[in-house]
Amino acid sequence: MTFREDGEATLGWIEDYLGRLRDLPVLSQVSPGEIRSALPPSPPDRAEAFSAVLRDLEDVLLPGLTHWQSPRFFGFFPVSGSEPGILAELLVATLNQVAVNWRAAPASTELEGLVLDWLAQLLGLPRTWHGHIEDTASTSTIAALAAARDATGRRVAVFSEHANVAVEKAARLVGLEPRKVPVDDEFRLDLSQLDLTDAAAVVATVGTTGTTAVDPVPALADACASAGVWLHVDAAYAGSSWVCPEFAWSREGVERADSLVVNAHKWLFTPMDCSLFWCARPDDLRRTFSLWQDILRTGEDVSLNLSDYGPALGRRFRSLKLWAVLRCHGREGLQALIREHVRLARVFASWVEAEPGWEIAAPYRFSTVCFRRDGTDEENEALLDRVNRSGEAFLTGTRVGGRYVLRLAVGNAGTTEDDVRVAWNVLRRLA
Amino acid sequence: MTFREDGEATLGWIEDYLGRLRDLPVLSQVSPGEIRSALPPSPPDRAEAFSAVLRDLEDVLLPGLTHWQSPRFFGFFPVSGSEPGILAELLVATLNQVAVNWRAAPASTELEGLVLDWLAQLLGLPRTWHGHIEDTASTSTIAALAAARDATGRRVAVFSEHANVAVEKAARLVGLEPRKVPVDDEFRLDLSQLDLTDAAAVVATVGTTGTTAVDPVPALADACASAGVWLHVDAAYAGSSWVCPEFAWSREGVERADSLVVNAHKWLFTPMDCSLFWCARPDDLRRTFSLWQDILRTGEDVSLNLSDYGPALGRRFRSLKLWAVLRCHGREGLQALIREHVRLARVFASWVEAEPGWEIAAPYRFSTVCFRRDGTDEENEALLDRVNRSGEAFLTGTRVGGRYVLRLAVGNAGTTEDDVRVAWNVLRRLA
Repeated sequence: MTFREDGEATLGWIEDYLGRLRDLPVLSQVSPGEIRSALPPSPPDRAEAFSAVLRDLEDVLLPGLTHWQSPRFFGFFPVSGSEPGILAELLVATLNQVAVNWRAAPASTELEGLVLDWLAQLLGLPRTWHGHIEDTASTSTIAALAAARDATGRRVAVFSEHANVAVEKAARLVGLEPRKVPVDDEFRLDLSQLDLTDAAAVVATVGTTGTTAVDPVPALADACASAGVWLHVDAAYAGSSWVCPEFAWSREGVERADSLVVNAHKWLFTPMDCSLFWCARPDDLRRTFSLWQDILRTGEDVSLNLSDYGPALGRRFRSLKLWAVLRCHGREGLQALIREHVRLARVFASWVEAEPGWEIAAPYRFSTVCFRRDGTDEENEALLDRVNRSGEAFLTGTRVGGRYVLRLAVGNAGTTEDDVRVAWNVLRRLA
Repeated sequence: MTFREDGEATLGWIEDYLGRLRDLPVLSQVSPGEIRSALPPSPPDRAEAFSAVLRDLEDVLLPGLTHWQSPRFFGFFPVSGSEPGILAELLVATLNQVAVNWRAAPASTELEGLVLDWLAQLLGLPRTWHGHIEDTASTSTIAALAAARDATGRRVAVFSEHANVAVEKAARLVGLEPRKVPVDDEFRLDLSQLDLTDAAAVVATVGTTGTTAVDPVPALADACASAGVWLHVDAAYAGSSWVCPEFAWSREGVERADSLVVNAHKWLFTPMDCSLFWCARPDDLRRTFSLWQDILRTGEDVSLNLSDYGPALGRRFRSLKLWAVLRCHGREGLQALIREHVRLARVFASWVEAEPGWEIAAPYRFSTVCFRRDGTDEENEALLDRVNRSGEAFLTGTRVGGRYVLRLAVGNAGTTEDDVRVAWNVLRRLA
């Protein structure tokens, strides 16, 4: 078979897969070890055809996939790819650029600068910031905290108890001691309990993972400015909403941050991985990350090289997929999708509010709703388990204010009101 | 246009691109800013067709690509994709798995374990080690050094002055003080100058970036065992050679390491990014990286979750492309490619040795040859610049033992003896 023929067969499988996503159980129903035990324990000596890979994908791996692209995936935060992003990844793999410095990958390096500037315009951010792409918010936050540690010489990272666990992981990785601040009754970092003693950085979250609460960024910016503390804003999920002017309220104060992360692979329809990292203090990033050896030297200004601003030397051509997504959706297309997701979340919340025996468990601001059924935590957890085992929809649960709650997050580009209704129906049926 | 039609057009562009790679200048000839200034400074409001992305890729971005996939790319270490890896990335982007825990992506998690075991068999490594995939060797080394820091409580990372700069970056990121050991006259870490005082980790390199020297791993394993120091082996490039039994000499002692990195995206024909990380002490990795929050809890054993063993929470389905590459090449196919690359490097070296006015500048052991033209460093550097500006071949230079040397690294799956001859002819013509 030629590349073209294998490619056609792959496109055919994908077209079919995307078409039957609603018919597949969203959460994989396999048990640990089941997939691996169905595959040969040793690699082949002789080459096999690519068609064998496609066949095993269908026959062996498919039952082991939790379908993150299903329109009925309402768990965590959905990561929603879209067709231009998917096809662009095919190009990225073909071109196989390694942007270790500008000269090694000029188009990749410059397109990355351009799309981060495009995003700064779309999201209403200062266009003077340095911006580049990391793989995940974990790495973006690692970059911010390492630079904050070196810039301040201090040893503590401060964030709310509702910050994503990636923040504590990042702090520990770079040797900062985590200090967790309790949240107020709307699950925002409680300013009255803020202690900045020996703080290198504060991480404020816009759209926490549990309830999508928005920490008080303007007040934190004041406090950080007074104390010489680095302010990093984690808007991995909710930052995408800023493409719509009606969410500008949640961006307030962010322009005074030292750094910011927004994940385009969460709610900007770009496949994993594409974490957008901006920094108002690029010189501090370079002080932490710029290290060169002879083989990497070129005649150009070192400041052009994006590996001088983050942990990894080797960098994929991720900007190509983001560029494709931004062009093939346009500002209006992105706004329409995000507004529809927010509308669907509100519709779902209105059903919960209207139904006896159910309640909303936290304020909802974006496309995520926390709710629960009257009853014990164990009953809610068991309900979630039954819903997910039905395969009809996938949701996650979490603990909020000492109680177990269920969570429906809308974010897939294909999700319709019918899909949300399916989730609500299965929840009520199995309650 | 439908997804299928856009996909067909993309496949067509790729088929054409792969077919004309030899006709394109290997090193991009643009100047800084040239690509970006040819693109619109602001994102579109309305959606564009994907065909517009393909058109601009051809017309605007192509001159800004340094063609890492060209058979005449002999710079750095080549990163060579291959067709099964490229098509698998298309599937990875479609399925968009996020392996934050086992339940969220069982097939991705289990296939990752399986292909790392396959690789352990192919490369002759202990099958009892934990293995997973990181994006780059930078991140694999960050994981190793953070675990070493936490396991030992010490503050120094020791490595040769010829270790990749990624090692020093990783050490600084996790707060370890770098201590560089001079090299001997064959550019290997000089054991007589090893000082393990307060050492958390030693990083030994098998196949250094400059000259592909092999540090004395067995003696370093002895020293680390006596002093309770973590031994991390960086075989990012040369580790792939172990698929051929005749390179087992360079693996000696590696079985006693605490951790190891081999980049499948370098010399195992898998597109960026695919860095293979093994560790003999998975409990230590978990102590550093295992942190959970309620939304991530599932009923399964936490040790199944690969994000417990490294810095990032979100993980792509990278194992799919490696699995496709291993199956579609087979052990014999991988061996044949690697042996041919080693043969081509030796042929090139024999030409250099036979030609008056040229000399070999370092022992060559794998597929990389360091050499120079009689004359000053400046003359050699200027020659390299002329060669690269010709576009006919791309090589890098570096400093070795106080002298500037040129370097030819073979690693692209399509490179033939004619391609190497083109490089040699342009070197002689422009000297």
